[in-house]
Amino acid sequence: MKKTWVLTLKCVDQPGIVHALTGALVAAGGNIEESQQFASLDTGNFFMRIEASAIAHPETFANRFTTELSPVMRRFNAEWNLVSSDRKLRTLILASKATHCVNDLLYSQRNGKLQIEVPLVLANHAVPGELAEFYGVPFEHLPITASADKQRFEQRIREVVAEHDIELVVLARYMQILSPELCAELAGKAINIHHSFLPGFKGANPYRQAHSRGVKLIGATAHFVTTDLDEGPIIEQDVMRVDHAASPTQLQQIGQDEEARTLRRAVGWFAENRILLDGQRTVIFK
Amino acid sequence: MKKTWVLTLKCVDQPGIVHALTGALVAAGGNIEESQQFASLDTGNFFMRIEASAIAHPETFANRFTTELSPVMRRFNAEWNLVSSDRKLRTLILASKATHCVNDLLYSQRNGKLQIEVPLVLANHAVPGELAEFYGVPFEHLPITASADKQRFEQRIREVVAEHDIELVVLARYMQILSPELCAELAGKAINIHHSFLPGFKGANPYRQAHSRGVKLIGATAHFVTTDLDEGPIIEQDVMRVDHAASPTQLQQIGQDEEARTLRRAVGWFAENRILLDGQRTVIFK
Amino acid sequence: MKKTWVLTLKCVDQPGIVHALTGALVAAGGNIEESQQFASLDTGNFFMRIEASAIAHPETFANRFTTELSPVMRRFNAEWNLVSSDRKLRTLILASKATHCVNDLLYSQRNGKLQIEVPLVLANHAVPGELAEFYGVPFEHLPITASADKQRFEQRIREVVAEHDIELVVLARYMQILSPELCAELAGKAINIHHSFLPGFKGANPYRQAHSRGVKLIGATAHFVTTDLDEGPIIEQDVMRVDHAASPTQLQQIGQDEEARTLRRAVGWFAENRILLDGQRTVIFK
Amino acid sequence: MKKTWVLTLKCVDQPGIVHALTGALVAAGGNIEESQQFASLDTGNFFMRIEASAIAHPETFANRFTTELSPVMRRFNAEWNLVSSDRKLRTLILASKATHCVNDLLYSQRNGKLQIEVPLVLANHAVPGELAEFYGVPFEHLPITASADKQRFEQRIREVVAEHDIELVVLARYMQILSPELCAELAGKAINIHHSFLPGFKGANPYRQAHSRGVKLIGATAHFVTTDLDEGPIIEQDVMRVDHAASPTQLQQIGQDEEARTLRRAVGWFAENRILLDGQRTVIFK
Repeated sequence: MKKTWVLTLKCVDQPGIVHALTGALVAAGGNIEESQQFASLDTGNFFMRIEASAIAHPETFANRFTTELSPVMRRFNAEWNLVSSDRKLRTLILASKATHCVNDLLYSQRNGKLQIEVPLVLANHAVPGELAEFYGVPFEHLPITASADKQRFEQRIREVVAEHDIELVVLARYMQILSPELCAELAGKAINIHHSFLPGFKGANPYRQAHSRGVKLIGATAHFVTTDLDEGPIIEQDVMRVDHAASPTQLQQIGQDEEARTLRRAVGWFAENRILLDGQRTVIFK
Repeated sequence: MKKTWVLTLKCVDQPGIVHALTGALVAAGGNIEESQQFASLDTGNFFMRIEASAIAHPETFANRFTTELSPVMRRFNAEWNLVSSDRKLRTLILASKATHCVNDLLYSQRNGKLQIEVPLVLANHAVPGELAEFYGVPFEHLPITASADKQRFEQRIREVVAEHDIELVVLARYMQILSPELCAELAGKAINIHHSFLPGFKGANPYRQAHSRGVKLIGATAHFVTTDLDEGPIIEQDVMRVDHAASPTQLQQIGQDEEARTLRRAVGWFAENRILLDGQRTVIFK
Repeated sequence: MKKTWVLTLKCVDQPGIVHALTGALVAAGGNIEESQQFASLDTGNFFMRIEASAIAHPETFANRFTTELSPVMRRFNAEWNLVSSDRKLRTLILASKATHCVNDLLYSQRNGKLQIEVPLVLANHAVPGELAEFYGVPFEHLPITASADKQRFEQRIREVVAEHDIELVVLARYMQILSPELCAELAGKAINIHHSFLPGFKGANPYRQAHSRGVKLIGATAHFVTTDLDEGPIIEQDVMRVDHAASPTQLQQIGQDEEARTLRRAVGWFAENRILLDGQRTVIFK
Repeated sequence: MKKTWVLTLKCVDQPGIVHALTGALVAAGGNIEESQQFASLDTGNFFMRIEASAIAHPETFANRFTTELSPVMRRFNAEWNLVSSDRKLRTLILASKATHCVNDLLYSQRNGKLQIEVPLVLANHAVPGELAEFYGVPFEHLPITASADKQRFEQRIREVVAEHDIELVVLARYMQILSPELCAELAGKAINIHHSFLPGFKGANPYRQAHSRGVKLIGATAHFVTTDLDEGPIIEQDVMRVDHAASPTQLQQIGQDEEARTLRRAVGWFAENRILLDGQRTVIFK
């Protein structure tokens, strides 16, 4: 595989952006491998993702490109980010008792399907421990039984985020609600998987709700964590056909497959810098 | 195609039902062509649909089977229904300005994909008139501008239902809310198509709601009409993938395809006696 | 809707293309509304589609942009095309006895879902005539019973293409095989719908083949017509779940829905200049 | 969960079967929990699956039911099978280097999603060994480099099948072709996963074939192993949307998810006695 770099940017939409930044790319000796853009009519924002390679001297390309880009990005007052596409995203996984999402994430990172590294799986149940051990990932079990335990757990999240310079926190069926303070601290870098097709069946026991309502498709939703429970910007959703004969327990079994897939896709896109925030909505450059 | 009859039944679940009614079938000289059953753990009800053919003398089979069945059905205290599978369901279509569902229904009945006959399309806008005329279906336009118009419209529904012995009323994107009285009168025989994946985005402007919420799949839901708006038993749902670039108007265009398909499936199953009610849920014998 | 223009181009991949052409756009006073690109590793080709608006003086924008673009396109030796996005594609529809695809295309163009105009529906059966008449589209019936009829039919296609400056010929379940000569003449501007998920079940009776093989999904494939029957570049495919109980006739009924949708999508993308050819493969900028 | 038993049967279609066997069920003191049937127009065969519970004395129900059933089954000359639904299917997994299917199967059986027990994973590469060990499943590595190795491998399959009374052999991306003799011996009890939507892209490198052909959906097919390579009766298929930008390697990565899901579903249905053979087709009672 050719070595590439990923530039993402967000600014107020205006003429000339693409021309200016491709000018910087040409000046830096780069070539576009993949490029997507989007102008939001809702917010007036412009979003772009460029994956570029170096025509020569890849070892100094990032510096050259940064030097050329900086004045352009200042001119357009853009938020931007440039990373090497082979870096692995430092990811903290939070878990509880159910292992299907943890298993999928760890299997996928081990087999090169997810560009992440996982310094820790932190769980309030011991169950995911043996999976983490098998995949050679550190594991910590901090039970939550009292309210103080929850604070201690969140304090531990903060420490790990700081210590390992965590870029993404994944709630892999971690069934606890994060405090508003922690939600705010992790804004835009914490992803949750909800086991329903949001906005249907928010809150607890979505499969039970889905069963009573008699829906014909069940789903899963990966979204950013915000203080409004189950209301954060949606990243990915998927559904599966079911019929009247499925009990709530069977819906849950069927749905776990969708949960694991949907969360994995969201984490993969985040790791590849394909997700940008446009107010309460996400722009996904697949 | 071999001539067949469809028996549907609903009773309290108990041992021996299938044996007893297949006994009646054997005694009447019939053979099972297709058969499905379901025992609901939620309500304790048993549901069955049998499609049967006559081994000999098809012209008298319905009488013979009815004679044999009646005591059995009484014994199990069952609600039951026996119809010839080639009869066409008398269906009243209600419409408004949008024609995509009306077009799909009329095209499908004309081409033998829907076993329905349509004595009338009744609409509060004139637009669907030319489609109805083309398909040789009577059309009436009753504008609704004042509250009295709405009562007059509903009165006309009642008259048509009575006059043509209507078995199904289809709200084919008829954008008016039926009165509680009419909902009650049409209980279990009026189907609406809602342009969202219920229970998400109830009420008005679901595509606008879906856009602001940034969902990644949009859907349609066919459901029985009840007094609780958009809360009736769900018959069928389907979804379509969309992305951040789709405007509310584009979501609507994309979604109309799902609406027409989903409603057509629901009407087709109703016409083939494949839908049974289990409290707030539907049993669909596909 | 803001007025826009669509530029598509194809050339050998090389650095600086995007910068050069966005330069032409800036110089012409245009702004990018939507843009996609793709560099093919298989052929070394670069493909791009830009939808642009005019910052001022839209009435002269196409001229200004063409003037600026021409030298750039020459420099990169590009095949390119610039059209107003509100123009309607001149489309000839070929049909036979089955009407489901014709109906979908005509309904969609009437209701603004397809940016096409249809100067003629030409069919070897009379059946689609009344649909065409209803939608106000000219119709010709040329029966094909002998080999000479087929030549006459193809001659008529050539005349219509010339007379109406036809940009796209749609084989809407036109069940005849075009001669190699006509295939060559219409290369890249004739789309067929095949009623299977190609490359499975090429040739005749795909639903019968699908039934004997016992597949669990049936599909439809829209592809460019080439002299290799059912081997032309694939534009779009879709599938539908079926089970063991479906007869070949039922597979056909179920599949017609996929055929109509799949063909409509392909025609719509063609009309919006979203399809580019990369050897035997298509690049689709959705 | 209530204890249940599963009866499957296959015989020539004729009137009275269901009545007779439900008579046996009533006489044995059983109740139907779930039931499906199918009459094949292709072969004239009748298929049925009944899941039944005991009204009283579950410990002796299987004996009572067998006693009542035997004369009925003889009368209709039926092939039949009665098993407790909580028994675990003795399953041999064959593997090679790729682990995605092995991982999914072992994770699913450990977490109760698959009713199987796995006495051995037998592989011609060492890679799956650590997964097997983690899940506590015996593992054997028999390299295949020469033709004699292949015979030795097949001999070992035969021994394991005999020793552990294996009911199902799963080729979980075991990339070797079984000898005609072994195919014959394992007829109806060996399932393979092919990494394409059969009958498209038979043989080697299906993802490469799919890429050159430019298909818009890729798929996976679980089928019974027969001497005709990739031609055995199809059990399950699924597809995933892809676009022009995906390389053969990316198609493979995307497809592995479908392979694992599709194979798992097929194995699960086999374990629950939901698959019956109707000539070259399968009847699946979901």
